Amino acid sequence: MTTSTGTNGIDTGALGAFVEHVKSKPDYRGTTFSADVVWQGGFRNEIRVRDLDPQYADEPAVLGGTDTASNPVEQILGAYGACLAIGYTANATARGIELRGVRIGLTGIVDLPVFFGLKDGHAGFSEIDLVVALDADAPLEALEALHAHVLRTSPVGNTLERPVRVHARLEEAPVAAAA
Amino acid sequence: MTTSTGTNGIDTGALGAFVEHVKSKPDYRGTTFSADVVWQGGFRNEIRVRDLDPQYADEPAVLGGTDTASNPVEQILGAYGACLAIGYTANATARGIELRGVRIGLTGIVDLPVFFGLKDGHAGFSEIDLVVALDADAPLEALEALHAHVLRTSPVGNTLERPVRVHARLEEAPVAAAA
Repeated sequence: MTTSTGTNGIDTGALGAFVEHVKSKPDYRGTTFSADVVWQGGFRNEIRVRDLDPQYADEPAVLGGTDTASNPVEQILGAYGACLAIGYTANATARGIELRGVRIGLTGIVDLPVFFGLKDGHAGFSEIDLVVALDADAPLEALEALHAHVLRTSPVGNTLERPVRVHARLEEAPVAAAA
Repeated sequence: MTTSTGTNGIDTGALGAFVEHVKSKPDYRGTTFSADVVWQGGFRNEIRVRDLDPQYADEPAVLGGTDTASNPVEQILGAYGACLAIGYTANATARGIELRGVRIGLTGIVDLPVFFGLKDGHAGFSEIDLVVALDADAPLEALEALHAHVLRTSPVGNTLERPVRVHARLEEAPVAAAA
């Protein structure tokens, strides 16, 4: 297997091989991703993905948590920023643009009384604002074209901008779930 | 300030005080949450939230990354599971239900060729499947009512199930973004 860490630090050999693999599978219907969440008590939760070190979610003390990790809505913003950064990196590399730095700041507003059950309404983000700073050796027009492409093809961006259908099932025979 | 860690490990005193604070502010328009993402090279990114220890995102080696952390779509699933777990915990506590365990498994399918630019379509999750195991000292009917309420009032769930408007700005004078 070829290892070729190219411009911007991506293993373009692996990525190219994966793209060729998918193109060679006419019955490809998508790649499944998973996460498991295990409650740790209070508002702290362990998030398990593949065999990676777990990550955590919690709430700030002012919201009744123990402030040991970012909360889920902050994690949505972080995941979106990271997805865009990966998009800039992948597509800049494909376009021969060398990046020196990428920084993305994201904010959103949550109407917490809806979560608290004090009123009806939208309990999450109806809007997200983000600012991208790209430091790269390319003209502004090229960066604007990159930016537009990345926003349009972001997996997290598409997930947020379009409605997701959720299929939720409560286990009928609850079992001990703590680790 | 009262500290009262109640059923299920929540600081109900702090949470109650926050709810009263919000109720006392007729001009409350929501609470702002933020995250900053700083590119680390390749597909690895640092996610900064408040003054917490940073978290990271990366891609698996097969997708050209260095496999040091979950990827952004996995983080979306994890954040959704954690949000639901926090919802079960908060609302079980409000209903006097003692939880012994909460475990949530989430999956979604991404059509990666859309991200790769090989075809048009939906680049993210159009559907998410999740299974919740609640271990609690309550009849199934009470858990089903809790489950329905939590799904309806989840901030991340609402963010995913409804379309989000994204306002993105590219900095016109790119600056060095690496730490």
